[in-house]
Amino acid sequence: MSYIRLVFTLDLFGDKKTGMMRNTLRRLPLYAQIKSVLIRRIVDGEWQANQALPSEWELAAELDVSQGTVRKALGELVTQGVLYRRQGRGTFVAEVASDWGAGYLVTPGLLNEKPDELVLELLGCSRGNAPDEVAQVLGLRRGAPVIRVRQLWRLSGLAVALDDAYLPAEPFDGLDARSIRQCGGGVYVTLQRRFGVRLRVTGEQLRAVMLGREDAAMLGVAPDQPVLSQLRVSATMEGEPLEWRQRICLTDSLAFTTGRQP
Amino acid sequence: MSYIRLVFTLDLFGDKKTGMMRNTLRRLPLYAQIKSVLIRRIVDGEWQANQALPSEWELAAELDVSQGTVRKALGELVTQGVLYRRQGRGTFVAEVASDWGAGYLVTPGLLNEKPDELVLELLGCSRGNAPDEVAQVLGLRRGAPVIRVRQLWRLSGLAVALDDAYLPAEPFDGLDARSIRQCGGGVYVTLQRRFGVRLRVTGEQLRAVMLGREDAAMLGVAPDQPVLSQLRVSATMEGEPLEWRQRICLTDSLAFTTGRQP
Repeated sequence: MSYIRLVFTLDLFGDKKTGMMRNTLRRLPLYAQIKSVLIRRIVDGEWQANQALPSEWELAAELDVSQGTVRKALGELVTQGVLYRRQGRGTFVAEVASDWGAGYLVTPGLLNEKPDELVLELLGCSRGNAPDEVAQVLGLRRGAPVIRVRQLWRLSGLAVALDDAYLPAEPFDGLDARSIRQCGGGVYVTLQRRFGVRLRVTGEQLRAVMLGREDAAMLGVAPDQPVLSQLRVSATMEGEPLEWRQRICLTDSLAFTTGRQP
Repeated sequence: MSYIRLVFTLDLFGDKKTGMMRNTLRRLPLYAQIKSVLIRRIVDGEWQANQALPSEWELAAELDVSQGTVRKALGELVTQGVLYRRQGRGTFVAEVASDWGAGYLVTPGLLNEKPDELVLELLGCSRGNAPDEVAQVLGLRRGAPVIRVRQLWRLSGLAVALDDAYLPAEPFDGLDARSIRQCGGGVYVTLQRRFGVRLRVTGEQLRAVMLGREDAAMLGVAPDQPVLSQLRVSATMEGEPLEWRQRICLTDSLAFTTGRQP
Protein backbone atom coordinates (compact mmCIF):
# COMPACT_ATOMS: atom_id res chain seq x y z
CA MET A 1 0.00 0.00 0.00
CA SER A 2 1.57 3.30 -1.01
CA TYR A 3 1.47 6.47 1.08
CA ILE A 4 -0.74 8.09 -1.59
CA ARG A 5 -3.43 5.54 -0.88
CA LEU A 6 -2.91 5.93 2.87
CA VAL A 7 -3.43 9.66 2.62
CA PHE A 8 -6.70 9.06 0.80
CA THR A 9 -7.84 6.65 3.49
CA LEU A 10 -6.89 9.17 6.15
CA ASP A 11 -8.89 11.91 4.50
CA LEU A 12 -11.99 9.75 4.70
CA PHE A 13 -11.36 8.88 8.32
CA GLY A 14 -10.57 12.47 9.22
CA ASP A 15 -13.66 13.77 7.51
CA LYS A 16 -15.93 11.21 9.08
CA LYS A 17 -14.58 11.44 12.57
CA THR A 18 -13.57 15.01 13.29
CA GLY A 19 -13.85 17.13 10.17
CA MET A 20 -10.44 18.55 11.00
CA MET A 21 -8.04 16.57 8.85
CA ARG A 22 -9.51 17.19 5.41
CA ASN A 23 -7.07 18.61 2.87
CA THR A 24 -4.34 19.02 5.42
CA LEU A 25 -2.33 15.85 4.93
CA ARG A 26 -1.33 16.32 1.31
CA ARG A 27 0.67 19.41 2.30
CA LEU A 28 2.66 17.53 4.96
CA PRO A 29 6.15 16.06 4.45
CA LEU A 30 6.23 12.31 4.03
CA TYR A 31 7.39 11.47 7.57
CA ALA A 32 4.54 13.61 9.00
CA GLN A 33 2.05 11.73 6.82
CA ILE A 34 3.43 8.46 8.17
CA LYS A 35 3.12 9.87 11.69
CA SER A 36 -0.56 10.63 11.08
CA VAL A 37 -1.10 7.14 9.68
CA LEU A 38 0.45 5.62 12.81
CA ILE A 39 -1.60 7.87 15.14
CA ARG A 40 -4.77 6.88 13.30
CA ARG A 41 -3.98 3.17 13.62
CA ILE A 42 -3.28 3.59 17.34
CA VAL A 43 -6.48 5.59 17.88
CA ASP A 44 -8.42 2.95 15.94
CA GLY A 45 -7.10 0.33 18.32
CA GLU A 46 -4.95 -1.68 15.88
CA TRP A 47 -2.18 -1.47 18.49
CA GLN A 48 -3.26 -1.39 22.14
CA ALA A 49 -1.56 0.39 25.03
CA ASN A 50 1.76 -1.23 25.98
CA GLN A 51 1.71 -3.35 22.83
CA ALA A 52 4.85 -3.38 20.64
CA LEU A 53 4.70 -1.87 17.16
CA PRO A 54 6.20 -3.84 14.25
CA SER A 55 9.90 -3.11 13.65
CA GLU A 56 11.01 -0.06 11.66
CA TRP A 57 11.94 -2.43 8.87
CA GLU A 58 8.51 -4.08 8.82
CA LEU A 59 6.66 -0.74 8.97
CA ALA A 60 8.83 0.66 6.16
CA ALA A 61 8.06 -2.36 3.96
CA GLU A 62 4.33 -2.25 4.74
CA LEU A 63 4.00 1.54 4.20
CA ASP A 64 6.30 1.54 1.16
CA VAL A 65 8.58 4.27 2.54
CA SER A 66 12.22 4.29 3.66
CA GLN A 67 13.25 3.05 7.08
CA GLY A 68 14.61 6.56 7.79
CA THR A 69 11.16 8.06 7.24
CA VAL A 70 9.60 5.54 9.63
CA ARG A 71 12.34 6.23 12.18
CA LYS A 72 11.72 9.98 12.03
CA ALA A 73 7.95 9.50 12.46
CA LEU A 74 8.47 7.10 15.39
CA GLY A 75 10.98 9.48 16.97
CA GLU A 76 8.51 12.35 17.03
CA LEU A 77 5.76 10.10 18.43
CA VAL A 78 8.11 9.07 21.25
CA THR A 79 8.87 12.76 21.97
CA GLN A 80 5.14 13.50 22.03
CA GLY A 81 4.43 10.66 24.44
CA VAL A 82 2.30 8.58 22.07
CA LEU A 83 4.93 5.86 21.96
CA TYR A 84 7.73 4.87 24.27
CA ARG A 85 10.90 2.84 23.72
CA ARG A 86 12.41 0.03 25.74
CA GLN A 87 16.08 -0.47 25.07
CA GLY A 88 16.53 -3.61 22.99
CA ARG A 89 12.84 -4.50 23.10
CA GLY A 90 11.23 -2.12 20.63
CA THR A 91 8.69 0.69 20.45
CA PHE A 92 5.45 0.48 22.44
CA VAL A 93 2.13 2.32 22.55
CA ALA A 94 1.78 4.59 25.60
CA GLU A 95 -1.32 4.47 27.79
CA VAL A 96 -4.27 6.64 26.80
CA ALA A 97 -3.79 10.04 28.44
CA SER A 98 -5.80 10.31 31.62
CA ASP A 99 -7.51 13.58 32.56
CA TRP A 100 -4.53 14.14 34.85
CA GLY A 101 -1.93 13.95 32.11
CA ALA A 102 1.32 12.77 33.67
CA GLY A 103 0.53 14.42 37.02
CA TYR A 104 -1.12 12.89 40.07
CA LEU A 105 -1.79 13.41 43.77
CA VAL A 106 0.42 11.86 46.44
CA THR A 107 1.02 12.04 50.16
CA PRO A 108 3.18 15.11 50.86
CA GLY A 109 6.76 14.87 52.08
CA LEU A 110 8.17 11.77 50.48
CA LEU A 111 8.80 11.94 46.80
CA ASN A 112 8.54 8.35 45.74
CA GLU A 113 5.08 7.29 46.89
CA LYS A 114 2.71 5.48 44.56
CA PRO A 115 -0.23 7.49 43.26
CA ASP A 116 -3.58 6.90 44.87
CA GLU A 117 -6.55 5.90 42.77
CA LEU A 118 -8.94 8.82 42.28
CA VAL A 119 -12.65 8.25 41.62
CA LEU A 120 -14.27 10.49 39.02
CA GLU A 121 -17.73 12.01 39.41
CA LEU A 122 -19.18 13.87 36.42
CA LEU A 123 -21.00 16.96 37.68
CA GLY A 124 -22.25 18.19 34.33
CA CYS A 125 -21.71 18.68 30.61
CA SER A 126 -23.37 21.72 29.08
CA ARG A 127 -23.19 23.92 25.99
CA GLY A 128 -22.57 27.66 26.11
CA ASN A 129 -20.35 30.46 24.85
CA ALA A 130 -16.59 30.61 25.28
CA PRO A 131 -15.39 32.98 28.02
CA ASP A 132 -12.85 35.43 26.54
CA GLU A 133 -9.84 33.75 28.15
CA VAL A 134 -10.89 30.34 26.83
CA ALA A 135 -11.58 31.68 23.32
CA GLN A 136 -8.17 33.33 23.21
CA VAL A 137 -6.23 30.22 24.25
CA LEU A 138 -8.21 27.87 21.98
CA GLY A 139 -8.06 30.25 19.01
CA LEU A 140 -11.87 30.66 18.84
CA ARG A 141 -13.83 33.82 18.11
CA ARG A 142 -15.36 35.61 21.12
CA GLY A 143 -18.42 33.82 22.41
CA ALA A 144 -17.94 30.80 20.10
CA PRO A 145 -20.00 27.73 21.07
CA VAL A 146 -18.17 25.53 23.57
CA ILE A 147 -18.84 22.44 25.65
CA ARG A 148 -18.20 22.83 29.38
CA VAL A 149 -17.47 19.71 31.46
CA ARG A 150 -17.39 19.84 35.26
CA GLN A 151 -15.85 16.94 37.16
CA LEU A 152 -15.16 16.12 40.78
CA TRP A 153 -12.36 13.79 41.90
CA ARG A 154 -12.65 11.79 45.12
CA LEU A 155 -10.07 9.94 47.19
CA SER A 156 -11.49 7.41 49.65
CA GLY A 157 -14.83 9.17 49.30
CA LEU A 158 -13.53 12.67 50.06
CA ALA A 159 -13.54 15.34 47.35
CA VAL A 160 -9.96 16.40 46.51
CA ALA A 161 -10.18 18.17 43.14
CA LEU A 162 -12.66 20.05 40.97
CA ASP A 163 -12.30 20.45 37.18
CA ASP A 164 -13.84 22.96 34.81
CA ALA A 165 -12.98 22.06 31.20
CA TYR A 166 -13.96 23.85 27.98
CA LEU A 167 -13.80 22.36 24.49
CA PRO A 168 -14.86 23.86 21.14
CA ALA A 169 -18.34 22.52 20.30
CA GLU A 170 -17.85 22.13 16.55
CA PRO A 171 -15.53 19.09 16.35
CA PHE A 172 -17.30 17.27 19.21
CA ASP A 173 -20.90 16.96 18.08
CA GLY A 174 -22.57 14.42 20.34
CA LEU A 175 -20.26 14.94 23.33
CA ASP A 176 -22.58 15.01 26.33
CA ALA A 177 -22.87 13.70 29.88
CA ARG A 178 -24.23 10.38 28.62
CA SER A 179 -21.31 9.71 26.25
CA ILE A 180 -18.76 10.66 28.90
CA ARG A 181 -20.47 8.35 31.44
CA GLN A 182 -20.52 5.53 28.88
CA CYS A 183 -16.76 5.81 28.30
CA GLY A 184 -16.30 6.00 32.07
CA GLY A 185 -12.80 7.42 32.16
CA GLY A 186 -13.14 11.16 31.81
CA VAL A 187 -12.88 13.61 28.93
CA TYR A 188 -9.68 12.34 27.30
CA VAL A 189 -10.78 8.73 27.05
CA THR A 190 -14.11 9.87 25.62
CA LEU A 191 -12.44 12.06 23.02
CA GLN A 192 -10.16 9.22 22.00
CA ARG A 193 -12.82 6.50 21.88
CA ARG A 194 -15.68 8.50 20.34
CA PHE A 195 -13.89 11.08 18.23
CA GLY A 196 -10.48 9.56 17.54
CA VAL A 197 -8.78 12.60 19.04
CA ARG A 198 -5.84 12.07 21.37
CA LEU A 199 -4.95 15.07 23.53
CA ARG A 200 -1.75 15.88 25.38
CA VAL A 201 -1.05 18.67 27.85
CA THR A 202 0.91 21.45 26.11
CA GLY A 203 0.81 24.17 28.77
CA GLU A 204 0.34 24.14 32.53
CA GLN A 205 0.37 26.88 35.17
CA LEU A 206 0.17 26.42 38.93
CA ARG A 207 -0.79 28.97 41.59
CA ALA A 208 -1.89 29.03 45.20
CA VAL A 209 -5.26 30.76 45.64
CA MET A 210 -7.94 31.09 48.31
CA LEU A 211 -10.83 28.68 47.85
CA GLY A 212 -14.02 30.59 46.94
CA ARG A 213 -17.46 29.94 48.44
CA GLU A 214 -18.99 28.39 45.32
CA ASP A 215 -16.13 25.94 44.69
CA ALA A 216 -16.01 25.14 48.43
CA ALA A 217 -19.70 24.20 48.31
CA MET A 218 -19.06 21.92 45.30
CA LEU A 219 -16.18 20.24 47.13
CA GLY A 220 -18.10 20.05 50.39
CA VAL A 221 -15.37 21.78 52.41
CA ALA A 222 -14.89 25.13 54.17
CA PRO A 223 -13.99 28.17 52.02
CA ASP A 224 -11.09 30.56 52.68
CA GLN A 225 -8.35 27.95 52.68
CA PRO A 226 -5.34 27.86 50.32
CA VAL A 227 -5.84 25.54 47.34
CA LEU A 228 -3.69 24.65 44.35
CA SER A 229 -5.09 26.12 41.15
CA GLN A 230 -3.95 24.50 37.92
CA LEU A 231 -4.59 26.09 34.52
CA ARG A 232 -3.98 23.77 31.62
CA VAL A 233 -4.20 23.68 27.84
CA SER A 234 -4.25 20.44 25.88
CA ALA A 235 -3.78 19.99 22.16
CA THR A 236 -3.98 17.29 19.52
CA MET A 237 -0.82 15.46 18.55
CA GLU A 238 -0.61 17.91 15.63
CA GLY A 239 -0.58 20.86 18.06
CA GLU A 240 -4.14 22.20 17.70
CA PRO A 241 -5.33 23.42 21.15
CA LEU A 242 -8.66 21.76 21.94
CA GLU A 243 -9.12 21.97 25.71
CA TRP A 244 -8.80 24.70 28.34
CA ARG A 245 -9.06 23.37 31.88
CA GLN A 246 -9.00 24.91 35.33
CA ARG A 247 -8.45 22.50 38.22
CA ILE A 248 -8.56 23.18 41.94
CA CYS A 249 -6.80 20.70 44.24
CA LEU A 250 -7.11 20.49 48.01
CA THR A 251 -3.53 20.11 49.18
CA ASP A 252 -3.81 20.20 52.97
CA SER A 253 -3.16 16.45 53.13
CA LEU A 254 -2.09 15.79 49.53
CA ALA A 255 0.51 17.13 47.11
CA PHE A 256 0.46 17.41 43.34
CA THR A 257 3.38 15.87 41.48
CA THR A 258 3.94 16.61 37.83
CA GLY A 259 5.25 13.10 37.28
CA ARG A 260 7.30 14.17 34.28
CA GLN A 261 10.77 13.46 35.62
CA PRO A 262 12.56 10.50 34.06
CA MET B 1 42.31 4.68 23.60
CA SER B 2 40.41 1.67 24.93
CA TYR B 3 37.55 1.86 27.39
CA ILE B 4 39.75 0.18 30.01
CA ARG B 5 42.07 3.14 29.93
CA LEU B 6 39.10 5.50 29.99
CA VAL B 7 37.76 3.85 33.09
CA PHE B 8 41.09 4.31 34.80
CA THR B 9 41.13 8.00 33.85
CA LEU B 10 37.62 8.36 35.17
CA ASP B 11 38.50 6.81 38.50
CA LEU B 12 41.18 9.43 38.96
CA PHE B 13 38.85 12.23 38.01
CA GLY B 14 36.04 10.89 40.14
CA ASP B 15 38.30 10.43 43.13
CA LYS B 16 39.80 13.86 42.83
CA LYS B 17 36.59 15.73 42.24
CA THR B 18 33.81 14.13 44.21
CA GLY B 19 35.01 10.95 45.84
CA MET B 20 31.84 9.29 44.64
CA MET B 21 32.86 7.48 41.50
CA ARG B 22 35.66 5.31 42.82
CA ASN B 23 35.28 1.60 42.16
CA THR B 24 31.84 2.00 40.67
CA LEU B 25 32.60 2.22 36.98
CA ARG B 26 34.20 -1.16 36.48
CA ARG B 27 30.93 -2.85 37.41
CA LEU B 28 28.94 -0.90 34.81
CA PRO B 29 28.03 -2.20 31.34
CA LEU B 30 30.08 -0.75 28.51
CA TYR B 31 27.47 1.74 27.26
CA ALA B 32 27.10 3.10 30.84
CA GLN B 33 30.87 3.56 31.06
CA ILE B 34 30.79 5.46 27.77
CA LYS B 35 27.92 7.54 29.17
CA SER B 36 30.05 8.45 32.20
CA VAL B 37 32.97 9.34 29.95
CA LEU B 38 30.75 11.66 27.92
CA ILE B 39 29.25 13.28 31.06
CA ARG B 40 32.75 13.86 32.41
CA ARG B 41 33.88 15.50 29.19
CA ILE B 42 30.80 17.75 29.16
CA VAL B 43 31.29 18.69 32.82
CA ASP B 44 34.96 19.41 32.12
CA GLY B 45 33.89 21.83 29.41
CA GLU B 46 35.28 19.96 26.39
CA TRP B 47 31.87 20.50 24.76
CA GLN B 48 30.00 23.68 25.72
CA ALA B 49 26.23 24.20 25.98
CA ASN B 50 24.51 24.12 22.58
CA GLN B 51 27.66 22.78 20.93
CA ALA B 52 27.36 19.73 18.68
CA LEU B 53 29.03 16.49 19.73
CA PRO B 54 31.09 14.57 17.17
CA SER B 55 29.08 12.04 15.15
CA GLU B 56 28.29 8.58 16.54
CA TRP B 57 30.76 7.21 14.07
CA GLU B 58 33.56 9.55 15.17
CA LEU B 59 32.88 8.94 18.88
CA ALA B 60 32.84 5.17 18.30
CA ALA B 61 36.22 5.34 16.54
CA GLU B 62 37.74 7.60 19.18
CA LEU B 63 36.47 5.57 22.15
CA ASP B 64 37.17 2.22 20.47
CA VAL B 65 33.64 0.87 20.97
CA SER B 66 30.84 0.00 18.55
CA GLN B 67 28.57 2.66 17.12
CA GLY B 68 25.62 0.86 18.78
CA THR B 69 27.23 1.35 22.19
CA VAL B 70 27.73 5.06 21.52
CA ARG B 71 24.14 5.35 20.28
CA LYS B 72 22.80 3.72 23.45
CA ALA B 73 24.86 6.05 25.66
CA LEU B 74 23.77 9.13 23.70
CA GLY B 75 20.13 7.99 23.79
CA GLU B 76 20.12 7.82 27.58
CA LEU B 77 21.81 11.22 27.87
CA VAL B 78 19.10 12.69 25.64
CA THR B 79 16.43 11.12 27.86
CA GLN B 80 18.15 12.57 30.93
CA GLY B 81 18.27 16.04 29.42
CA VAL B 82 22.07 16.27 29.25
CA LEU B 83 21.97 16.26 25.46
CA TYR B 84 19.33 17.13 22.92
CA ARG B 85 18.90 16.21 19.28
CA ARG B 86 18.05 18.33 16.28
CA GLN B 87 16.65 16.38 13.37
CA GLY B 88 19.30 16.11 10.67
CA ARG B 89 21.73 18.35 12.55
CA GLY B 90 23.17 16.14 15.26
CA THR B 91 23.37 15.83 19.04
CA PHE B 92 23.97 18.93 21.18
CA VAL B 93 24.87 19.69 24.80
CA ALA B 94 21.94 21.04 26.82
CA GLU B 95 22.27 24.20 28.93
CA VAL B 96 23.51 23.80 32.50
CA ALA B 97 20.49 23.19 34.72
CA SER B 98 19.35 26.36 36.43
CA ASP B 99 18.17 26.29 40.05
CA TRP B 100 14.64 26.31 38.58
CA GLY B 101 15.12 23.15 36.54
CA ALA B 102 12.77 23.34 33.56
CA GLY B 103 10.18 25.39 35.49
CA TYR B 104 9.79 29.15 35.66
CA LEU B 105 7.44 31.95 36.70
CA VAL B 106 5.11 33.62 34.20
CA THR B 107 2.17 36.00 34.15
CA PRO B 108 -0.96 34.00 34.99
CA GLY B 109 -3.72 33.36 32.49
CA LEU B 110 -1.99 33.01 29.15
CA LEU B 111 0.04 29.91 28.65
CA ASN B 112 2.61 30.99 26.11
CA GLU B 113 4.30 34.00 27.72
CA LYS B 114 8.07 34.25 27.86
CA PRO B 115 9.69 33.70 31.25
CA ASP B 116 10.76 36.77 33.17
CA GLU B 117 14.35 37.08 34.30
CA LEU B 118 14.70 36.43 38.03
CA VAL B 119 17.51 37.96 40.07
CA LEU B 120 19.13 35.75 42.68
CA GLU B 121 20.14 36.92 46.16
CA LEU B 122 22.10 34.49 48.33
CA LEU B 123 20.82 34.79 51.92
CA GLY B 124 23.22 32.33 53.47
CA CYS B 125 25.18 29.08 53.27
CA SER B 126 25.70 27.25 56.55
CA ARG B 127 26.65 23.83 57.89
CA GLY B 128 24.42 21.82 60.20
CA ASN B 129 22.69 18.49 60.73
CA ALA B 130 20.21 16.96 58.35
CA PRO B 131 16.56 17.27 59.42
CA ASP B 132 14.94 13.80 59.44
CA GLU B 133 12.95 14.37 56.26
CA VAL B 134 16.04 15.54 54.38
CA ALA B 135 18.16 12.64 55.65
CA GLN B 136 15.51 10.14 54.56
CA VAL B 137 15.16 11.50 51.03
CA LEU B 138 18.94 11.90 50.50
CA GLY B 139 19.72 8.50 51.98
CA LEU B 140 21.81 9.94 54.86
CA ARG B 141 21.94 8.80 58.47
CA ARG B 142 19.95 10.87 60.96
CA GLY B 143 21.66 14.17 61.76
CA ALA B 144 24.36 13.69 59.12
CA PRO B 145 26.34 16.86 58.28
CA VAL B 146 24.65 18.90 55.57
CA ILE B 147 25.10 22.25 53.85
CA ARG B 148 22.05 24.52 53.91
CA VAL B 149 21.69 27.19 51.23
CA ARG B 150 19.03 29.90 51.47
CA GLN B 151 18.25 31.98 48.40
CA LEU B 152 15.81 34.73 47.52
CA TRP B 153 14.56 35.37 43.98
CA ARG B 154 13.49 38.85 42.88
CA LEU B 155 11.51 40.02 39.89
CA SER B 156 11.85 43.76 39.11
CA GLY B 157 13.16 44.21 42.64
CA LEU B 158 10.26 42.48 44.39
CA ALA B 159 10.85 39.18 46.21
CA VAL B 160 8.87 36.37 44.53
CA ALA B 161 10.42 33.14 45.81
CA LEU B 162 12.41 31.80 48.75
CA ASP B 163 14.55 28.63 48.59
CA ASP B 164 15.83 26.40 51.35
CA ALA B 165 18.21 23.76 49.92
CA TYR B 166 20.07 20.96 51.73
CA LEU B 167 23.04 19.04 50.34
CA PRO B 168 25.19 16.35 51.98
CA ALA B 169 28.36 18.02 53.29
CA GLU B 170 30.78 15.19 52.46
CA PRO B 171 31.03 15.43 48.67
CA PHE B 172 30.98 19.25 48.67
CA ASP B 173 33.94 20.26 50.80
CA GLY B 174 34.56 23.96 50.19
CA LEU B 175 31.00 24.82 49.16
CA ASP B 176 30.27 28.10 50.93
CA ALA B 177 28.66 31.50 50.33
CA ARG B 178 31.85 32.80 48.74
CA SER B 179 32.11 30.00 46.17
CA ILE B 180 28.42 30.30 45.28
CA ARG B 181 28.75 34.07 44.85
CA GLN B 182 31.85 33.57 42.68
CA CYS B 183 29.95 31.24 40.33
CA GLY B 184 27.07 33.72 40.36
CA GLY B 185 24.37 31.44 39.02
CA GLY B 186 23.02 29.55 42.00
CA VAL B 187 23.65 26.12 43.49
CA TYR B 188 23.52 24.02 40.32
CA VAL B 189 26.03 26.09 38.37
CA THR B 190 28.36 26.07 41.40
CA LEU B 191 28.12 22.29 41.74
CA GLN B 192 28.85 21.82 38.07
CA ARG B 193 31.73 24.31 37.86
CA ARG B 194 33.43 23.54 41.18
CA PHE B 195 32.62 19.89 41.76
CA GLY B 196 31.86 18.52 38.29
CA VAL B 197 28.44 17.35 39.49
CA ARG B 198 25.48 17.94 37.24
CA LEU B 199 22.08 17.68 38.95
CA ARG B 200 18.63 17.16 37.49
CA VAL B 201 15.25 17.30 39.20
CA THR B 202 13.99 13.76 39.85
CA GLY B 203 10.99 14.45 42.06
CA GLU B 204 8.73 17.44 42.56
CA GLN B 205 5.65 18.08 44.70
CA LEU B 206 3.45 21.16 44.72
CA ARG B 207 1.02 22.34 47.37
CA ALA B 208 -0.80 25.49 48.36
CA VAL B 209 -0.02 26.58 51.93
CA MET B 210 -0.43 29.63 54.11
CA LEU B 211 2.66 31.82 54.28
CA GLY B 212 4.19 31.73 57.76
CA ARG B 213 5.44 34.78 59.68
CA GLU B 214 9.16 33.93 59.39
CA ASP B 215 9.10 33.32 55.63
CA ALA B 216 6.89 36.40 55.16
CA ALA B 217 9.52 38.50 56.95
CA MET B 218 12.25 37.07 54.69
CA LEU B 219 10.19 37.89 51.60
CA GLY B 220 9.18 41.28 52.94
CA VAL B 221 5.45 40.66 52.47
CA ALA B 222 2.40 40.13 54.70
CA PRO B 223 1.92 36.64 56.24
CA ASP B 224 -1.32 34.62 56.09
CA GLN B 225 -1.65 34.57 52.32
CA PRO B 226 -1.74 31.47 50.10
CA VAL B 227 1.65 30.62 48.57
CA LEU B 228 2.85 27.83 46.29
CA SER B 229 5.11 25.41 48.13
CA GLN B 230 7.39 23.27 46.00
CA LEU B 231 9.29 20.30 47.42
CA ARG B 232 11.98 19.01 45.14
CA VAL B 233 14.68 16.35 45.02
CA SER B 234 17.55 16.50 42.55
CA ALA B 235 20.02 13.74 41.72
CA THR B 236 23.17 13.19 39.72
CA MET B 237 22.89 11.85 36.20
CA GLU B 238 23.58 8.42 37.73
CA GLY B 239 20.54 8.78 40.01
CA GLU B 240 22.16 9.55 43.37
CA PRO B 241 19.94 12.08 45.25
CA LEU B 242 22.11 15.04 46.31
CA GLU B 243 19.73 17.91 46.97
CA TRP B 244 16.50 18.42 48.90
CA ARG B 245 14.90 21.78 48.29
CA GLN B 246 11.82 23.56 49.56
CA ARG B 247 10.70 26.58 47.57
CA ILE B 248 7.94 29.05 48.35
CA CYS B 249 6.55 31.12 45.46
CA LEU B 250 4.30 34.15 45.72
CA THR B 251 1.63 33.52 43.09
CA ASP B 252 -0.78 36.40 43.55
CA SER B 253 0.50 38.02 40.36
CA LEU B 254 2.62 35.19 38.97
CA ALA B 255 2.14 31.53 38.06
CA PHE B 256 4.57 28.62 38.09
CA THR B 257 4.86 26.63 34.91
CA THR B 258 6.64 23.31 34.87
CA GLY B 259 7.92 23.97 31.36
CA ARG B 260 8.27 20.27 30.64
CA GLN B 261 5.73 19.90 27.86
CA PRO B 262 7.17 19.34 24.40
